Amino acid sequence: MAFYDHSFLWSFVPKSVAEGMVINMISKKMEMLGKQPSKIREIFEYSNKRRKEIGAENVFDFSLGNPNIPAPKEVNETIIRLLNERDSIDVHGYTSAIGDLNTRTAIANNINKRFGFSAQPSDIYMTSGAAASLEITIKALCNEEDEVIVLAPYFPEYKVFIENVNAKVVEVLCRENDLQIDTNAVKSAITEKTKAIIINSPNNPSGVVFPESDIKALAKVLNDYSNKSGEPIYIICDEPYREIIYGNIEVPYIPNIYDNTIVCYSYSKSLSLPGERIGYILVSNKAKDNKDVYAAVCGAGRSSGYVCASSLFQYVIAECDGLAPDIEKYAENRNLLYDSLCEIGYNAIRPDGAFYLFIKSLEEDANEFCEKAKKYELMLVPSDSFGIKGYVRIAYCVSYEQIERSIPSFKKLFEEYCG
Amino acid sequence: MAFYDHSFLWSFVPKSVAEGMVINMISKKMEMLGKQPSKIREIFEYSNKRRKEIGAENVFDFSLGNPNIPAPKEVNETIIRLLNERDSIDVHGYTSAIGDLNTRTAIANNINKRFGFSAQPSDIYMTSGAAASLEITIKALCNEEDEVIVLAPYFPEYKVFIENVNAKVVEVLCRENDLQIDTNAVKSAITEKTKAIIINSPNNPSGVVFPESDIKALAKVLNDYSNKSGEPIYIICDEPYREIIYGNIEVPYIPNIYDNTIVCYSYSKSLSLPGERIGYILVSNKAKDNKDVYAAVCGAGRSSGYVCASSLFQYVIAECDGLAPDIEKYAENRNLLYDSLCEIGYNAIRPDGAFYLFIKSLEEDANEFCEKAKKYELMLVPSDSFGIKGYVRIAYCVSYEQIERSIPSFKKLFEEYCG
Repeated sequence: MAFYDHSFLWSFVPKSVAEGMVINMISKKMEMLGKQPSKIREIFEYSNKRRKEIGAENVFDFSLGNPNIPAPKEVNETIIRLLNERDSIDVHGYTSAIGDLNTRTAIANNINKRFGFSAQPSDIYMTSGAAASLEITIKALCNEEDEVIVLAPYFPEYKVFIENVNAKVVEVLCRENDLQIDTNAVKSAITEKTKAIIINSPNNPSGVVFPESDIKALAKVLNDYSNKSGEPIYIICDEPYREIIYGNIEVPYIPNIYDNTIVCYSYSKSLSLPGERIGYILVSNKAKDNKDVYAAVCGAGRSSGYVCASSLFQYVIAECDGLAPDIEKYAENRNLLYDSLCEIGYNAIRPDGAFYLFIKSLEEDANEFCEKAKKYELMLVPSDSFGIKGYVRIAYCVSYEQIERSIPSFKKLFEEYCG
Repeated sequence: MAFYDHSFLWSFVPKSVAEGMVINMISKKMEMLGKQPSKIREIFEYSNKRRKEIGAENVFDFSLGNPNIPAPKEVNETIIRLLNERDSIDVHGYTSAIGDLNTRTAIANNINKRFGFSAQPSDIYMTSGAAASLEITIKALCNEEDEVIVLAPYFPEYKVFIENVNAKVVEVLCRENDLQIDTNAVKSAITEKTKAIIINSPNNPSGVVFPESDIKALAKVLNDYSNKSGEPIYIICDEPYREIIYGNIEVPYIPNIYDNTIVCYSYSKSLSLPGERIGYILVSNKAKDNKDVYAAVCGAGRSSGYVCASSLFQYVIAECDGLAPDIEKYAENRNLLYDSLCEIGYNAIRPDGAFYLFIKSLEEDANEFCEKAKKYELMLVPSDSFGIKGYVRIAYCVSYEQIERSIPSFKKLFEEYCG
């Protein structure tokens, strides 16, 4: 989750805009997007203030999805080796716009080995992380007025990237009891303008993993529609949390199930490298017009100013793709938090992946609930930011000790409502 | 200069597009941009083919603007120290979207020390290099139908970024004799839709540096217009080559001359890190509505999927901003190439900066001239790619020996026309 550090974040829109007198001004759409207050940022800043006032150990900040597990040691070892062994001009020089061939080959081989798929290096386009992957993919696919279905709860930047190309966000709520895909609701939301549906599993913010049976049911709905209309509806697979899963859960590899799939991958979470901005797009070679889609991906990346993904980190990925951080710590956090909150009496969705716990707000307005939680120094994010009402996101990529210390506060908060 | 590595680069546009039957297809604008043949790439590939056929030492490839001088040794030393001394979660973690505060402070201090300006860290937005800086700045400033003046010859990606926001490129030719700014021509090109003018000095592809007197004359034209219209015309300063200058030439710091200036900087050339994608935008705090422009920059970066610039390289810049590679080698190359070609009889623009020599084509059609040059294994780029006819770009960021070996070929080529 990126956050925005403008001291003037909440300044007002110039009066002339309010009055509709926009003459030769800068882009108001961009200005307002830059000034948009971020709920998560707001909470994070309040949290910083409280840390100074009462001491860091007494503040329980669960607002940010920033990995707290270091990158596997091989990552830094590889960087140092590359710098020592290879020529500077080579290591720090441009790669081709689509990415280093060895890197793409390593990724394709790994995909094929792990998932029994048939990826080729020429299906892969290296990007600066998941946000870039999504922005580029949406720009490649969508024309103005096209519709993209998102399953609520969803990562709020989807809206930014969809509206960036003047396409339309169509929100479809997940099933209320378990936040799984509501296939019938998706079916009802499809129109002749539907270009794509974004699937994010393991899910931010709910931690839910969508099982293979549900992906197959969704694929059938999409295929049935395409067979009639003659045009595909693409699945955009947003997969930054693929490697962060607990127990024997399997995250289905959607290109094996549905041909018209584009995977947006990132190493931010899998290798704990969020600041380095490295990831890729895979255009399934089974997708209709996949060579044209891949060309559009290249064009979209180019027009958004992406020259190439970081050369050094591409070479790191060529060697480190497939490694994972020690997610055992996330698993311990999840168990402690989930078990403790359920025991207190909270209604929580059991997360099978990612590092978020989604719980039911104890009052209708989750914003109000989060305000009350602040009294107990609990910093939680209301689900309104994710397109759904009545829930709260708890990011547990924090120390085990913070969770331990926070449990009495969660208890007191519960008792305020149900005591 | 980025290049594009699609094996299907010259495939045809689908028939349905040609026939105007576009129904619910992917973005044809992006697809065509991705498939657009790149002249430079085409030359580079031909050059690779020739290398295999006749040996690398016999091919004189002057097509790519890829620095051939390594990064200052402090860059790799700093990376290794950061990895050894700092926490992995910190070094590889998200920075704020606008960039690390220490990095922005170091840059602002350096600007103020070098140029006597008054930059603040809050005026700076860290980016993934010059292309990102330009794409974001243009997106922040322009509404649809706005006009952006570019001075031909110019870097071809300007057009891509301007058309990305459905604004219009207005080409103004430089003066024919010296490729300096034709202030009267700029004045004639200004309309009520003019939002900005891009100034690139030292210039790619001509190597020309615009002197202070000409920038002042330009500033007067822009200010005169703004005073009447009430709305600023912004100067977008594209400065990747600022540190690559020869002799006692001074590159004027435009924010000192013209208030409504936005600087797009990159470390690709100054620190020889083109693959790492690191640079910044400076919104002059003297610009009209500069806080709004800065907010629009933040919004544009966000909507283009830029979460933050590489954290590791931001920390490197905090320590290495102000260093320069050993440009003496470029200077030696320039002298050898310029002197030799003038002696043969070529009409060349003397480059005061960057690493390009721009010479007059010996026939009207520079494309034809470059084709003839290939007979002598000289790989040159015709100026048509840069919005001007009748010139050829020679990128001399190559070995001194390559230039030495190539001189007889330049001589034979000249003799074919004027022997």
